[in-house]
Amino acid sequence: MGKNAMKRLNELIKAKNSRICAGLDPVMADIPNSLKSKVIEEIEDSTLEGMSREEQEEMLLEDIFYEYCVEYVHAVKDIVPAIKINSAFFEKERLEDLYFEVAEEAKASGLFVIGDVKRADIGNTSAAYAEAFLGEESPFDAITINPYFGTDGVMPFLKLAKENGKGVFVLVKTSNKSSAEIQDLELADGRKVYEAVADLVLKWGRKVDSESRDENGELDYPMVGAVVGATHPDQAKDLVWSMGKTFFLVPGYGAQGATAKDVACNFDGEDGTGAIVNSSRGIMNAYKKDCWKDQYSEETWAEAVKAEAIRATKEINEAINKYFKKDICK
Amino acid sequence: MGKNAMKRLNELIKAKNSRICAGLDPVMADIPNSLKSKVIEEIEDSTLEGMSREEQEEMLLEDIFYEYCVEYVHAVKDIVPAIKINSAFFEKERLEDLYFEVAEEAKASGLFVIGDVKRADIGNTSAAYAEAFLGEESPFDAITINPYFGTDGVMPFLKLAKENGKGVFVLVKTSNKSSAEIQDLELADGRKVYEAVADLVLKWGRKVDSESRDENGELDYPMVGAVVGATHPDQAKDLVWSMGKTFFLVPGYGAQGATAKDVACNFDGEDGTGAIVNSSRGIMNAYKKDCWKDQYSEETWAEAVKAEAIRATKEINEAINKYFKKDICK
Repeated sequence: MGKNAMKRLNELIKAKNSRICAGLDPVMADIPNSLKSKVIEEIEDSTLEGMSREEQEEMLLEDIFYEYCVEYVHAVKDIVPAIKINSAFFEKERLEDLYFEVAEEAKASGLFVIGDVKRADIGNTSAAYAEAFLGEESPFDAITINPYFGTDGVMPFLKLAKENGKGVFVLVKTSNKSSAEIQDLELADGRKVYEAVADLVLKWGRKVDSESRDENGELDYPMVGAVVGATHPDQAKDLVWSMGKTFFLVPGYGAQGATAKDVACNFDGEDGTGAIVNSSRGIMNAYKKDCWKDQYSEETWAEAVKAEAIRATKEINEAINKYFKKDICK
Repeated sequence: MGKNAMKRLNELIKAKNSRICAGLDPVMADIPNSLKSKVIEEIEDSTLEGMSREEQEEMLLEDIFYEYCVEYVHAVKDIVPAIKINSAFFEKERLEDLYFEVAEEAKASGLFVIGDVKRADIGNTSAAYAEAFLGEESPFDAITINPYFGTDGVMPFLKLAKENGKGVFVLVKTSNKSSAEIQDLELADGRKVYEAVADLVLKWGRKVDSESRDENGELDYPMVGAVVGATHPDQAKDLVWSMGKTFFLVPGYGAQGATAKDVACNFDGEDGTGAIVNSSRGIMNAYKKDCWKDQYSEETWAEAVKAEAIRATKEINEAINKYFKKDICK
């Protein structure tokens, strides 16, 4: 495993010619009935007899979740470079161990695995969270963190990530509507709060990772990246300019409303790397989408996942080529 | 269970005449050897023979953690009104189930149980975290959350908390040194970022909890409280003034350096309620402290916990009486 996480991610982007991060936010109600039935049938358990379907599903929640997540991983693994797995949906079901098992499966499948955990606290506590998700044995290549505590709350994550060749994505400008309430507040010095956070992210990157250079002596992307929502393209453009060589994790494309055109600006005009666009519900629930529902059904949900991952990959690549007016993503 | 969490907490404060929240941040290296030995001896397991002490401790990590946490809960339960249990130290050891078991034990012991989880995300994800920690069956009376996403990221926590008679503490001004980097940035309108967050917290409280009144028709503390670090007494004073009837969770006293005098201003001058002062390492590791190490040893660590909880309780009560120049905390 290479020592620079963002370099590994860029290499995967180029190898697969995809800039899509497949998000995994499993929700029991959205898991196709066909998959649930398969799991119930396959598990020959006499205690299931006489139970209502609801009771059966509740009893087999963990098996159903596991089967769903693994099928999802296998559906996307040959198409996209990365997967972002959201801890909230596992914690909701009290399936924290499964969270790591799914991440292991994703890692073994050759994906760059992002733990979307958004943790942050004071130093000694951040150090404990860092151990949980960025330890040497952890399947995660990178995690998301929240900047509100400032340097001493962030540094334990960065230090352990650096040590273990992993990365960190700091929330800068989030994709939700209300993000403006705090993040867009105007500061006395003319910056917005998220721009001040962006400046801190740059500072943090230099602090832990100033020496990382590629084989040509060029500076690598630091292992400290930024989360910049696709739903704010104008602000993203400014951040691309001000943050220079910083890797962007871009949520908000698809189900949250941002288009491929909105996200093209986040990429590096030289080779179309340096950013990755996340789509979670858009890919997971593709079989229900207008553009796929005639072709796929809930029985073929995993094929729809694959088809949507391919479609999104192409759409982003085309938008990038259009934006930079050259053929970057061949 | 009453419908207003902060009212329940205030009643416990008055009943126990203590304004201390005992923090629980279990760290394997700090758990007394005597307790570890007891657990190892009590578990008659032939596989332990021939193992090194280190291997034995590793194998019995969960049992040791459980014993330690339960003894801690029982040491503080008759003295303090509340306990704050930090998820990071359980996640570090992959003991998430134990986190809930310890919280159950604390709840059964009559404590107000704060889940120190500092979660936050976009709406649908916050809703999943809320289900994890603020569901009807959850042992937590309240949790801590991060404000960076703004209203739509916060509201799912508030709504579920309101529904289940639970509370939420929003990070406003954290106790760590670097908190100034983002939280103290000056806005164009003259406020600091943390003051803008405080204004949002007030707005959120009114939005979900405008009608909660006590038996005399007085407004109750809203179920949305604020985390305000004890290490910034001047800023806390301003916040007490600007936030009016808002419950404060005050970290930073003890191991982080703030004194009883620093925190007295956070309380309500009428009856010394409306705030709770957290001490984690200060209470947990009391037997090592200069003031207790002659009286207690690691064998009697739990007695030192009790003694320190009583000492801190008295110290805070005296500081409040001095600050308000009356005998509030009898």
